[in-house]
Amino acid sequence: MVSKERLMERFTRMRKFTGEEDGPGIYRLAFTDADWQARNYLAGLMREVGLVVREDAFGNVIGRWEGADPSLPAVMFGSHADSVPNGGNYDGVLGILAAIETVQSLKEDGFCPEHPLEAVLFMCEESSRFGAATLGSRAMLGELSVDDTRRLKDKAGIALYDVLKGRGLAPDMLGKPLYDGEVKAFFEVHIEQGRVLEHEKKSVGIVTGIAAPTRFSVKLQGNADHSGATPMALRHDAACAAAEIVLAAEHFAAAEQEPPAVATVGVLQIAPGVMNVIPGGAELGVDIRSIDAATKKCVAENLKDAVSEICGRRGVAFEIVPISDERPVAIRPSVLDFLDGICREDGCSYMRLPSGAGHDAMHWAERVPTGMLFIPCRDGVSHNLEEYAAPEDIVAAARLLERVVRAASRKNVTFA
Amino acid sequence: MVSKERLMERFTRMRKFTGEEDGPGIYRLAFTDADWQARNYLAGLMREVGLVVREDAFGNVIGRWEGADPSLPAVMFGSHADSVPNGGNYDGVLGILAAIETVQSLKEDGFCPEHPLEAVLFMCEESSRFGAATLGSRAMLGELSVDDTRRLKDKAGIALYDVLKGRGLAPDMLGKPLYDGEVKAFFEVHIEQGRVLEHEKKSVGIVTGIAAPTRFSVKLQGNADHSGATPMALRHDAACAAAEIVLAAEHFAAAEQEPPAVATVGVLQIAPGVMNVIPGGAELGVDIRSIDAATKKCVAENLKDAVSEICGRRGVAFEIVPISDERPVAIRPSVLDFLDGICREDGCSYMRLPSGAGHDAMHWAERVPTGMLFIPCRDGVSHNLEEYAAPEDIVAAARLLERVVRAASRKNVTFA
Repeated sequence: MVSKERLMERFTRMRKFTGEEDGPGIYRLAFTDADWQARNYLAGLMREVGLVVREDAFGNVIGRWEGADPSLPAVMFGSHADSVPNGGNYDGVLGILAAIETVQSLKEDGFCPEHPLEAVLFMCEESSRFGAATLGSRAMLGELSVDDTRRLKDKAGIALYDVLKGRGLAPDMLGKPLYDGEVKAFFEVHIEQGRVLEHEKKSVGIVTGIAAPTRFSVKLQGNADHSGATPMALRHDAACAAAEIVLAAEHFAAAEQEPPAVATVGVLQIAPGVMNVIPGGAELGVDIRSIDAATKKCVAENLKDAVSEICGRRGVAFEIVPISDERPVAIRPSVLDFLDGICREDGCSYMRLPSGAGHDAMHWAERVPTGMLFIPCRDGVSHNLEEYAAPEDIVAAARLLERVVRAASRKNVTFA
Repeated sequence: MVSKERLMERFTRMRKFTGEEDGPGIYRLAFTDADWQARNYLAGLMREVGLVVREDAFGNVIGRWEGADPSLPAVMFGSHADSVPNGGNYDGVLGILAAIETVQSLKEDGFCPEHPLEAVLFMCEESSRFGAATLGSRAMLGELSVDDTRRLKDKAGIALYDVLKGRGLAPDMLGKPLYDGEVKAFFEVHIEQGRVLEHEKKSVGIVTGIAAPTRFSVKLQGNADHSGATPMALRHDAACAAAEIVLAAEHFAAAEQEPPAVATVGVLQIAPGVMNVIPGGAELGVDIRSIDAATKKCVAENLKDAVSEICGRRGVAFEIVPISDERPVAIRPSVLDFLDGICREDGCSYMRLPSGAGHDAMHWAERVPTGMLFIPCRDGVSHNLEEYAAPEDIVAAARLLERVVRAASRKNVTFA
């Protein structure tokens, strides 16, 4: 049975693996000493609970339980343990500790899985250090090349390639999939990093899809005239144009209900940025997400049309510069129904919801039956020292993952 | 007669007094070496054209022509020569060079003024170095205290007090008026720093009033939630609230027609300012101007009400922090009529217009009959390397100032 005490004690241990940075939060950036120590601690736990541990050329750690028939595809479950700067102790950590607790609990129960089980720790999920996310999963699946590792650099200018070499890993093996096994299904539990579960007063969320972002920047050029000497009618104010674009992004996203979309202008800079000059320049960073690609495209196109109309009307020049346009992934109905059944059986209060954030699971979802479960985090706060998940929700996550793995490891449970 | 060649040659000379900063423009910040060299050059010109030059404890330079009756109040005219960083060569410079040209032209014509004439160079008109404008005029009129000079510091943390001491000046004399004479009238010519004259195809503008700004900042605090994981309906986005405020400022200012008003959000910062976080914080700097105090107040109150409504609706906390609330000044009708007569006599194409920017003249306008004339500057650009006034307009400014001074120096010309 899942042990609350054991599980929470491991969260306390994990909290100690933090860098020596200024802030009070966790600075477990990928492949730093703190991250490496946490990884070794987790690999040790995997061994302790009876798993056979291997690592791949990127440093991802897999703890395997052969089960009744090692020739069957594995049921894989896990998450990451790196953090953003000044981050919290739940993002990722929940998923890997719940995975280890699941194995330990099943072992203690004398359970014998028919399919092999694999608890997995993905390296470098956060984009904070190298500007790109879920690199461990991508490496496992062959979506990260040697060139990528030479191109991706941290703020100190050190290439991921050299960082990997420094940890005794083998970046030259990248490009082809590092993971050579076969996966029956992949499961990840994670904190929601949003307010929906809290707002809806649900303990658990079944993720319906993972909304990868479409991002672009909008650069505006108006006239930086004197703020006192230029009548309103003669202005070409880039900040006013930017303001209309911010509100248009909000409007078009809010108009999409089923499936929903979100749009955020998280970056907004104006120039020259002084009291007595009309803003002549502005730059906006737009992030649009939906679990449905067509919906996301619709919001993006509507917004681009609005940018053109707003700037034309205001006599402000504009340029739209694409940043990224990732595919959202849907969770298969068979997996959603399976997870519904698990939650009903457990008796927890749950709902379905999309994931707005990206996760390792999205790469697996494109290849194998994949499921994700969310638990609430206080005030929706994540990527921050204030990140907090209640122990009862953490225990529920581990308990549900144990039920999920227990069921999925049966040969007679299949996913269409 | 005003000499175009002589006048333009002096603009060329002035262009050489610039600091050693990175940009290609003029960095003649108040009391820097470049500014001090320009001041000494201009004081030398005043002597060269036959003026008796004195300086006050703040470094303002006054060149006096006693005229027929030294006991009469003086007709004063001039401007400043300091610049913003990366500034142009016309803002201020036009007024002081036209003043010197006026004297030289009148001397060459054998003119004998009845009232004394005083050409004046004001120090530290721009707020760029010490964050406060028109300090030379304020010092002359007793509106700058010793304490003010200790409080006002440049970016390097050097107090104005010490800067003045460093130039051999006497900041301890501040607080009471440094100017101990009597002024019949004050006149200043200046580039418009706006697009109105250019837009209306007029060579000259008679300034009807000077619109001092009301400034405040608006600080917004929403929730910095995850941009992917937070549905539109659960957001408290400070950037969206800020966008509505920017557009409300524009709307309320544009609604005032007679007299007009302008409102500018020149400062707009959002936090944390990254793509994957909803802006939790925002700060706006609002600048509202009108030559009519009641109109200005109306725009400010409307906007503050709107801030409250917008933030209440969006669940965003706000704070409005006053920065300044200066009195606009109106130009006396008698002076406007006098300047109308001068322009008609000259045959130039002219119009009346308000000044949205502050000038040294505004401090004099509160005490003595004061007039200002504007000439167009290309595209309304000022405070910028691209600042440009056409030689024919510059010559017209000097010619008109000469006519103004010639007429105002007569005992039978009076201002109600």
